[in-house]
Amino acid sequence: MPDILHRVGVKSSTHDVYRALTTIDGLAGWWTVTTSGDSTVGGRIHFQFGDRGAFDMKVLELVPGQRVLWDVVDGPAEWVGTKVSFDLRQDDEQATVMFKHAGWAEPVEFMHHCSTKWATFLMSLKAMIETGTGTPMPDDVRITVNWD
Amino acid sequence: MPDILHRVGVKSSTHDVYRALTTIDGLAGWWTVTTSGDSTVGGRIHFQFGDRGAFDMKVLELVPGQRVLWDVVDGPAEWVGTKVSFDLRQDDEQATVMFKHAGWAEPVEFMHHCSTKWATFLMSLKAMIETGTGTPMPDDVRITVNWD
Repeated sequence: MPDILHRVGVKSSTHDVYRALTTIDGLAGWWTVTTSGDSTVGGRIHFQFGDRGAFDMKVLELVPGQRVLWDVVDGPAEWVGTKVSFDLRQDDEQATVMFKHAGWAEPVEFMHHCSTKWATFLMSLKAMIETGTGTPMPDDVRITVNWD
Repeated sequence: MPDILHRVGVKSSTHDVYRALTTIDGLAGWWTVTTSGDSTVGGRIHFQFGDRGAFDMKVLELVPGQRVLWDVVDGPAEWVGTKVSFDLRQDDEQATVMFKHAGWAEPVEFMHHCSTKWATFLMSLKAMIETGTGTPMPDDVRITVNWD
């Protein structure tokens, strides 16, 4: 099954990145401002993207400063049952973020779209930590003409 | 074998996108300013990224306004033998670009890096066509701290 893979390097500590991935305020600062729920292991986080839809993630695994794993439990049909992970590593002054959105059934056009969109959100995560300002929805980077 | 997939929508015609993918000047406007060679079918294009390295692509297929296919004939070991394609489709005012970098032997860390980097270069392609200004190397978007 095809996966979406990305990597970014953030000038920070893995601790700061981990906090941005595991707190509601942190997540709201780079992915979507309308983030709610329980971000502890076994909890469920709701990411609302206005009229465009939403994703619900169950938190499967948290290793402080090292790893975050979510199971997509609600959202677009192509996403449900897929898994999203962030693996963190400190490389001198850089926190290296290895991202994987695994388990897509088919490499459909929507997967192409989500791959590019994930890249822009990971750059938003990087910007939020490095500069204090990310570009979460509704200020997210437009990769198409009509948000489609 | 894992692939890198992306999609962007450019407010333009597929003709304009095709030109940006099939002329040396066009390619130099969004990927690297130091692009040279023969961009016709059977030709070889050299993309130099300063000290960071280079890629040589053999042009395998060109369908005007629809498709571009390259074979990586020189560059990093992980790239040689992989194929890069751009499939274009007109959707009203948007030229939809479906991108694939296919045939990676393994989902190595460098593949994660290249996936994110391709996304930023496709956004550079989009910006070049929509605004007249892309961000080709050496003005490319930094996704890590030290270009690594």
